[in-house]
Amino acid sequence: MTELEHRTPEQEWNAWGTADGASPVPEEMRTLIEQGLGVVRRDTPSVDRSAVRVGESRLPDEVRSALVAIVGDDGVRTDDDARLLHAGGKSTPDLLRRRAGDADSAPDAVVLPGSHEQVCELLARCAEHRVAVVPFGGGTSVVGGVEPERGGFASVIALDLRLLDGLVDLDAESQTATLQAGLRGPEAEELLAGHGFTLGHFPQSFEHASIGGFAATRSSGQASAGYGRFDAMVVRLRVATPTGELDLGRAPASAAGPDLRQLFLGSEGALGIITEVTVRVHPKPQEVESAAWSFPDFATGAKALRVLAQEGALPTVARLSDELETMINLATAHEVGGGEQSGGCLMITRYEGSRIAVRARVEQLLSESGGTSLGAAPAEKWDHGRYHGPYLRDALLDVNALVETLETASTWSRLEETCNAVREALTESLQAQGTPPLVMCHISHVYPTGASLYFTIACGRGDEPVSQWRQAKRAAGDAISRSGATITHHHAVGLDHREWLTDEIGELGVAVLRAVKSTVDPSGVLNPGKLIP
Amino acid sequence: MTELEHRTPEQEWNAWGTADGASPVPEEMRTLIEQGLGVVRRDTPSVDRSAVRVGESRLPDEVRSALVAIVGDDGVRTDDDARLLHAGGKSTPDLLRRRAGDADSAPDAVVLPGSHEQVCELLARCAEHRVAVVPFGGGTSVVGGVEPERGGFASVIALDLRLLDGLVDLDAESQTATLQAGLRGPEAEELLAGHGFTLGHFPQSFEHASIGGFAATRSSGQASAGYGRFDAMVVRLRVATPTGELDLGRAPASAAGPDLRQLFLGSEGALGIITEVTVRVHPKPQEVESAAWSFPDFATGAKALRVLAQEGALPTVARLSDELETMINLATAHEVGGGEQSGGCLMITRYEGSRIAVRARVEQLLSESGGTSLGAAPAEKWDHGRYHGPYLRDALLDVNALVETLETASTWSRLEETCNAVREALTESLQAQGTPPLVMCHISHVYPTGASLYFTIACGRGDEPVSQWRQAKRAAGDAISRSGATITHHHAVGLDHREWLTDEIGELGVAVLRAVKSTVDPSGVLNPGKLIP
Repeated sequence: MTELEHRTPEQEWNAWGTADGASPVPEEMRTLIEQGLGVVRRDTPSVDRSAVRVGESRLPDEVRSALVAIVGDDGVRTDDDARLLHAGGKSTPDLLRRRAGDADSAPDAVVLPGSHEQVCELLARCAEHRVAVVPFGGGTSVVGGVEPERGGFASVIALDLRLLDGLVDLDAESQTATLQAGLRGPEAEELLAGHGFTLGHFPQSFEHASIGGFAATRSSGQASAGYGRFDAMVVRLRVATPTGELDLGRAPASAAGPDLRQLFLGSEGALGIITEVTVRVHPKPQEVESAAWSFPDFATGAKALRVLAQEGALPTVARLSDELETMINLATAHEVGGGEQSGGCLMITRYEGSRIAVRARVEQLLSESGGTSLGAAPAEKWDHGRYHGPYLRDALLDVNALVETLETASTWSRLEETCNAVREALTESLQAQGTPPLVMCHISHVYPTGASLYFTIACGRGDEPVSQWRQAKRAAGDAISRSGATITHHHAVGLDHREWLTDEIGELGVAVLRAVKSTVDPSGVLNPGKLIP
Repeated sequence: MTELEHRTPEQEWNAWGTADGASPVPEEMRTLIEQGLGVVRRDTPSVDRSAVRVGESRLPDEVRSALVAIVGDDGVRTDDDARLLHAGGKSTPDLLRRRAGDADSAPDAVVLPGSHEQVCELLARCAEHRVAVVPFGGGTSVVGGVEPERGGFASVIALDLRLLDGLVDLDAESQTATLQAGLRGPEAEELLAGHGFTLGHFPQSFEHASIGGFAATRSSGQASAGYGRFDAMVVRLRVATPTGELDLGRAPASAAGPDLRQLFLGSEGALGIITEVTVRVHPKPQEVESAAWSFPDFATGAKALRVLAQEGALPTVARLSDELETMINLATAHEVGGGEQSGGCLMITRYEGSRIAVRARVEQLLSESGGTSLGAAPAEKWDHGRYHGPYLRDALLDVNALVETLETASTWSRLEETCNAVREALTESLQAQGTPPLVMCHISHVYPTGASLYFTIACGRGDEPVSQWRQAKRAAGDAISRSGATITHHHAVGLDHREWLTDEIGELGVAVLRAVKSTVDPSGVLNPGKLIP
């Protein structure tokens, strides 16, 4: 197993990422939200660490001893600092609660297994002692996926997988790599680069999210046009459950019954803990080219993406901002991209390695579809800031604004209708609450039959910002569900989308999930409350 | 719903396909097997229809009435002719039994629902009356998937879906079509062609197999390099079960938990009856180009296919025969392809529509990988005979030979080892039985991480040909399982691969399948004995 040189630092307890990455909101953006949205100038910083109420650890001694017997003393942490760092994910409501000093829901302990076998043993012991287990990778969930819910059990632990950080195997001929679940995005890339390969999975959470998390939530990266979604990269999965283990996937494709890998991909820790993933990898591209395009409107740009996806002539990255997102990016150009164009919709394209060969055909199709080339600069600016969005959100939370995102996917024929329905639902809900929002949208994942829609919402912060957002989110979720789109394209279900899952998969679909859970986790200790309604 | 003009005729009871397609074995091939394999010249024809023992129908009157109440009198057939046509699939053992006059296992009735709703009602009634239900599409299973097993129930019916033959919806913008499950391959293509589209799914069983069968067995077609496997084409599934229905798939991709479509794709009628499938379709290609290539040996040709798959530069069809298959094809060239080359391995490529654009790059890679162009003729000959293989098998069964096929898939790094292990196991088993075989192999489905291996076995017929083959098949299956490859790449599990499923998905994987079955089919009437060990 190859050793890591650069370890990803832990995130801040009250913000995305690390202090190094944070920066105050640019003054022109602050002015924009004050003038555009009527946000009153007021600083709304986080409380200090000393003012945080971390719930007391309630781990019984006998349980602690049982866990220590498996992972050693260092592997069971019950100090407040460790528990605070595992008190939840990174959605805006998560951050708002912790910024206000509320970490009551912190887990009773943080447990750090060092091997697949230890995970298996821990799960068996937790089932026996009826201790809830919340798997924890990078802690980047924005849907409540790592919320330490007790689910009726007396204790809850966060099972932090960070020590599972090895490259177990690299099969250069088959272009597959077996990665342990705790590896963070940059760590996995470092290990693969040592052999000349890349995974090609770069979601906005890349700098902190983990391989196991990508698998457990069906993540999709910014380069999905070129490398595909994470679930589509997975050849093999190793899963620990309280009743035993699963090792699924013996071939690139199979007709040996249902594809059970697809039951554990997206299982969000509720059906097992993914400890190892064998994924397809690619030779690390030597060359990269970027190009930005402008389209007169969102519908024309979306149609151009459809033409590319249906012909199968796609860049590695293809994303299209709607008119408002394009305008805001322009107005705050030094921060989040933008360029020379005025008005219209910005499309970013990027070609890596062998994809460069299709660039001429892609650009012919984009031109024929009404696009105008803007050169490389705006696309390079986007690339420079591609992981910065969540930091900007934190900066805005400091200045009396509320910012959050949500996403869906639909077929091409229903995409515009879905987009409008969600935008209207959000606008109506927040307007009614006295905080008219900006609702921006982009397409960043395309398929022959449809695409994703990613919304960014900014508005003034109300008196009760958590319930303010919950109300808007419910309106958006209802609109998505009514329009027949999926409740989530790549953020997963967690707690926040659970109420719409029955709409999506039906009563019988939910019953099937429950039956699977009863089989692998009869005591129900695995990530209680997540995923299954 | 568009109406069909050309209906697919029913297959013969004792052979593949229709009498029109059959032809006697070419004399040079008969000579070849006599000289090469020491097969004694002897005619071994099927018995006449009049000599067939069709088991008596044991459908109780009250069950018959209950079923007639749903589908009408015409929808419940208990005559011997109808039941004989549903007495099993088309594996060599299936045919050997029926050719010997044995149709004891014929179902008690053939029931023909006309709608999804009728399927739901029938399943509820059958569960209530404890009648086993074997879903029947084209009846082309070669793994015992449509064997009328009673599974401990007093009665068994074949649920023939042929009346579900509509194009329910065509979304030209999203390039999706919703097809009913009973449509045969050519029927689906006829309906789609009316709108300018093709499905692009052309397995060897194409002329008779059904859309529902493709989905239920994870079929893969000869053009999988261009259009993908059938399971990868599916956007949405409608499934009827005794406890209710499922309608799965709202978007091209989703992170809303496990992908339950993947639990019903490949479920082989054991978890529900697929009644409708929404699939990705493609504009019908206007142009087609074919090209054959020769490689010095199988390993060199396989490596060339790997290079294509890993770069993503693939023709629509890409298949490579090993040395022996190439030689046999040449020796019987007018029948099954072949061409001018001598020795080496034949590769067939075919480019449809937009794939023609990658031809130059593909051919550059094939040349660099040691290939020699043979021009279009051998590839066009292959295309001409692409659905003829099973007819040739029947002709060989008439002349004292035994012919059967089996298949697997593995990673590129283990492909050669798997191929050798299977070839040796088959050769050893059949040699030990006094019938030394020819074992031919080809690669016809390629992926970035691996490929399929398809074996054709020919030898003299022993005294007990069914058990002769069973013994060889067991040796091959054990070799596949030991080598870590999948027990089936596209033939499904049925009865014949059931014993290896536990090796493939583990005890817990099997327990998960059983839990799902208990939820959707608590009485266990759905296709008893298939899939789940």
